[in-house]
Amino acid sequence: MRIAVVGVGLIGGSIGLGARKRLGAEVSGTDRSPDALTAAVERGALDRACQTTEEALDGAEAAFVAVPVGTLEGVVSEVLAAAADDCVVSDVGSTKRAVVAAHSDPRFVGGHPLAGAESSGVEHARADLFDAATWYLTPSQTDADTHDRILASVSHLPHVLANVLVSRAAAALRSGDQQLEATGPSLRDATRVAGASSAIWTDIYMSNADVLAKELKRFSGQLDEVRRALSDKDTRWLERWNEAAAADRRSLLEAQLAGEELFELRVSVPNRPGVIAEIALALGRAGINITDLALYPAPDMREGVVALWIAGPDRARRTEQLIADLGLPVVRA
Amino acid sequence: MRIAVVGVGLIGGSIGLGARKRLGAEVSGTDRSPDALTAAVERGALDRACQTTEEALDGAEAAFVAVPVGTLEGVVSEVLAAAADDCVVSDVGSTKRAVVAAHSDPRFVGGHPLAGAESSGVEHARADLFDAATWYLTPSQTDADTHDRILASVSHLPHVLANVLVSRAAAALRSGDQQLEATGPSLRDATRVAGASSAIWTDIYMSNADVLAKELKRFSGQLDEVRRALSDKDTRWLERWNEAAAADRRSLLEAQLAGEELFELRVSVPNRPGVIAEIALALGRAGINITDLALYPAPDMREGVVALWIAGPDRARRTEQLIADLGLPVVRA
Repeated sequence: MRIAVVGVGLIGGSIGLGARKRLGAEVSGTDRSPDALTAAVERGALDRACQTTEEALDGAEAAFVAVPVGTLEGVVSEVLAAAADDCVVSDVGSTKRAVVAAHSDPRFVGGHPLAGAESSGVEHARADLFDAATWYLTPSQTDADTHDRILASVSHLPHVLANVLVSRAAAALRSGDQQLEATGPSLRDATRVAGASSAIWTDIYMSNADVLAKELKRFSGQLDEVRRALSDKDTRWLERWNEAAAADRRSLLEAQLAGEELFELRVSVPNRPGVIAEIALALGRAGINITDLALYPAPDMREGVVALWIAGPDRARRTEQLIADLGLPVVRA
Repeated sequence: MRIAVVGVGLIGGSIGLGARKRLGAEVSGTDRSPDALTAAVERGALDRACQTTEEALDGAEAAFVAVPVGTLEGVVSEVLAAAADDCVVSDVGSTKRAVVAAHSDPRFVGGHPLAGAESSGVEHARADLFDAATWYLTPSQTDADTHDRILASVSHLPHVLANVLVSRAAAALRSGDQQLEATGPSLRDATRVAGASSAIWTDIYMSNADVLAKELKRFSGQLDEVRRALSDKDTRWLERWNEAAAADRRSLLEAQLAGEELFELRVSVPNRPGVIAEIALALGRAGINITDLALYPAPDMREGVVALWIAGPDRARRTEQLIADLGLPVVRA
């Protein structure tokens, strides 16, 4: 089987690695960056580095376009022009409506694997990057509208909020006496993705602009409701609203774990080098996986709380015991 | 020296422990919960458990009121009534205007230590909880208005956004075909504090309702600007806005580290038990502290990326080397 990969970054490189290792495919690839192309061959993601799209597509039965969203439409057109009549062409873009609308060619299927958003570059490519990942196919599996609407809520909106929040906080703290030192863990968590790579994110915002704008409008509408409750001093509304949010958060987390119940444990620790290792080693030896972990350092960065999310009641109980054995106070949140 | 603590949870208990260990003070305490009172004595936070405020205040030179914000005004009045003429009374409430406005008594100084918000209960109390923490005093150090305005931006607002975001995401995903599995790391980070303890947070929202409502209005105003840029397809505005957010985030983080430059390293790891331990052990042995850490598991929860924030260029370089020595791919974000 021959496969072509156009754009060999993290995603394209991982497709190449997986196709070679798991399908025994012969993979040709091309990239605008000669360095990326060389690295992809060195890393084993490609059998053959090609200078042109035509060369890469020669004899390919399937082609994956893994370039930034902003150049996606044009590159897909180029690939379709070079592809054989029986070659399937797909892409991996984070938004789907534009590229799907632009290509009614029956050989084209839009795609979006939910993987690898946290790093980039072929040096992070892995044959198993997509194991058990959701890989949206449009329109066969989900329509492009639904895809872009869901992603606006769960990915694009959080990025916008992080950006606005970090700017508000920086402005507020700059204007105050206490300067910037007073930020807490909630702000840090909420702004971790603030200012994510402009090269990637400007494209994503632009390609989903209308849906995201609507999502922002709805979000503002809900903020207005909270504002009304605050102005009316409506304690009961605020309490109900907060409880509903707690339930929604839990259901989101549990859904990711295929329904296994998730337990949050909070451990008070001296934030010295090695303490995370002690905890992680104890759990590792017992074969307990840490589903999620957060550090909440005190302002002096020397002490703090480690929050651990552990799936399953038995593992959670065992974790509590192991941590107590280390002499660290632990409670369920 | 004799000190009284009214309300012996995490904060009150830590005040007791610190005062006993560091000042050699004799600490009396009281709490509405008999269990908390017993635990506080067992943990060494109190010399004496008292049934009434009067008994706890007997002979005290200083008193700390560490009860939920909703009951703060009444309890401070009670304590002032029981306190000697030369006894200083302070509180630890998260909002300051109401309690400061209600007590013009010269013996009263409003206070708010920024510590311990991540856990509760006297079982997490520590003598050194407040080491190097910011401890706001009003009105002597900062005025109550400034305090409550800053906290609205850096703490109360992020909690509101997390609540609204988690509910929007849950609703969007419930309505979609792919159900709840498609959430990514940005949503998880942004919603970690969603639905935080209603007992604590309803009080905080209520006591800072007017300032928080204004902050929400300003926040919505900034969302409107983003919405305009999206509707106008203003790529350059979005790019500049995103870059400004990146700069603001960096300056917030660096301010917490007294100006030391912060480096974000991303490590691709198999998300198996023990891998965090390997990394943390290697850094611990080298005496390198992890300022912050985040896990970004792939949807299968077995593989992923660990982001590490390390302070100082030399330590960051050393960390890169140590992780590369473990055979794990690492890049600077």
